[in-house]
Amino acid sequence: MSASVDLGRLPRTVSVEQQDGRTVLRYIDQRLLPGELKEVVTADWLQIVDAIKVLGVRGAPAIGVAGAAACAVWAADPATSMDDFDDAMERIANARPTAVNLRWAVERACAAAREAGAIDAARQGDRAPLAQVLFQEAVAISREDEAANRAMGAYGAELIEPGSRMLTHCNAGSLATSFYGTALGVIYAAAEQGKIAHVYADETRPLGQGARLTSWELAQAGVPVTVICDNMSASLMAAGKVDAVVVGADRITRNGDTANKIGTYGVAVLAKHHGIPFYVAAPTSTVDLSLADGSLIPIEERSADEVLPQSIPGVRVWNPAFDVTPADLITAIITERGVFAPADLAAGLGE
Amino acid sequence: MSASVDLGRLPRTVSVEQQDGRTVLRYIDQRLLPGELKEVVTADWLQIVDAIKVLGVRGAPAIGVAGAAACAVWAADPATSMDDFDDAMERIANARPTAVNLRWAVERACAAAREAGAIDAARQGDRAPLAQVLFQEAVAISREDEAANRAMGAYGAELIEPGSRMLTHCNAGSLATSFYGTALGVIYAAAEQGKIAHVYADETRPLGQGARLTSWELAQAGVPVTVICDNMSASLMAAGKVDAVVVGADRITRNGDTANKIGTYGVAVLAKHHGIPFYVAAPTSTVDLSLADGSLIPIEERSADEVLPQSIPGVRVWNPAFDVTPADLITAIITERGVFAPADLAAGLGE
Repeated sequence: MSASVDLGRLPRTVSVEQQDGRTVLRYIDQRLLPGELKEVVTADWLQIVDAIKVLGVRGAPAIGVAGAAACAVWAADPATSMDDFDDAMERIANARPTAVNLRWAVERACAAAREAGAIDAARQGDRAPLAQVLFQEAVAISREDEAANRAMGAYGAELIEPGSRMLTHCNAGSLATSFYGTALGVIYAAAEQGKIAHVYADETRPLGQGARLTSWELAQAGVPVTVICDNMSASLMAAGKVDAVVVGADRITRNGDTANKIGTYGVAVLAKHHGIPFYVAAPTSTVDLSLADGSLIPIEERSADEVLPQSIPGVRVWNPAFDVTPADLITAIITERGVFAPADLAAGLGE
Repeated sequence: MSASVDLGRLPRTVSVEQQDGRTVLRYIDQRLLPGELKEVVTADWLQIVDAIKVLGVRGAPAIGVAGAAACAVWAADPATSMDDFDDAMERIANARPTAVNLRWAVERACAAAREAGAIDAARQGDRAPLAQVLFQEAVAISREDEAANRAMGAYGAELIEPGSRMLTHCNAGSLATSFYGTALGVIYAAAEQGKIAHVYADETRPLGQGARLTSWELAQAGVPVTVICDNMSASLMAAGKVDAVVVGADRITRNGDTANKIGTYGVAVLAKHHGIPFYVAAPTSTVDLSLADGSLIPIEERSADEVLPQSIPGVRVWNPAFDVTPADLITAIITERGVFAPADLAAGLGE
């Protein structure tokens, strides 16, 4: 049933490279998909920050890679000054507030530079080691992300029954990571094993990541996909057409509560009501052990015009970009280090 | 808190009239709202059928009135032939399949004509009585609809606590009826009693009846309103910001199962999960006692381009226009004859 699955056609979303002696980020501007597949190559760290803010690059793991790349691009830019180093790193880490991967990646890259003595050297006038360490760390984060996705895919595919009809929300695919995807990585791995009968993609208002991105990349890979509006998933479940739900995550707290794209929590409640397993797939870099539970996760609110392009006099809009799914609605959390019950996650990660 | 509520600014959506000796339907083309408030006046029965099909006129009670009007317009049109009477009536009743009010109104108008001997007279060459009876019946259906809405509003408002924050889905307002609305009628009546703190309107993809119509008419009437995407209602409930849900209905079966706009069922599951009362407001003409339960209700499926305006190669779309909420998720059904537990509805209506 999945004989035509071809992952060679999946896009590589973000890539940190050296090009003509410059450190650059190559990324797909996702705002233009599915109409146009446009690659941007930039050596401008502020352009990377802006791309993250406007969702040109989106998806928790992908913005982690892009954030680390922005650090490396900053360090390689002779126009920048070490007097601004801390501010610049903070500005990159703050480009979006909810996904923890962004801050995690920036902090990891800076810690590597600090340990190598490259920050001190840069403050004393030798910028080369800093640029080199940050570049290497960004590349490492990107490679580890792809490896983590493939490991998650292998672990997650074991949970999927042959002939499964899957539902997913938003885009946690190759377009949300350096390559392969988290939730869609599980689907790709299961599809390569011939287990996926069909995938339903929630449209994911207001920005349509499911309608525009998940549908496109699944079709690219040859996985059969149907788009539904977010408000149709309940009917689909009631009709017995969903065997399992799998979604990504932007931040997971100690107790297993999970922030993900707005609408995820509602799907989790519906899955529970219909007795359907609900899986979260995310790399361990998404786990924020510093927070006890999901009530502590900052939720980004975005502008009204994403929902109502033309305002209506007297009409307000509420546009949170994420919601929090309580651990008790999550069947299992799939990571690159194995599959965990939400309550066992922190202990399972050795914390 | 609702001091500025002014129902004098609510639109009259459909109106059957005599104009220069012609029988006409005057209606607001709802596809153009909120950008443009355009009234159409037509003496062309096929234009009315088309307006119903394309959702220029929508909302179960409003399409009932429009359907009866189409019968009257047909009968008053000298270009029509009684040889086509049965076919024309069937074509009107079939313009959309799910809402029972349309067929109910056409059958009621035709039954009145039959009982008055007007169909026999028309077959024998005297068309005037048929045109007159069908016109009178269409006007009566419209007037009774408004009266039913005001009665529903009064009954329903008794269920609403002072200071309530309400959630509604789709548009079951003045724009969905001849005037005043069903679910929004309850909100208007409660607002006039100062009980409504706020209304949240689900956007209602794919056609945006909540974002475009409910928001607009509530703002017109001075009721504070916030639009959310359909996938945000779960978060809103979890945040404790919804005190009650009220929606309309397109068909209610003997056991209280209720078909309404796609997404209603999901909201009902979410309301149950969060312990929030879920009310259906609908005139008794919406009740189809001929059907034992909701599994027997035909669900209209509409075209893919409503969901994805530009198709994506290899990507399918599922676009059901309605879903069925099981009776056990409904706290009470509000009708013009009183408030019923779903299980008591059929008996309460004297059947």
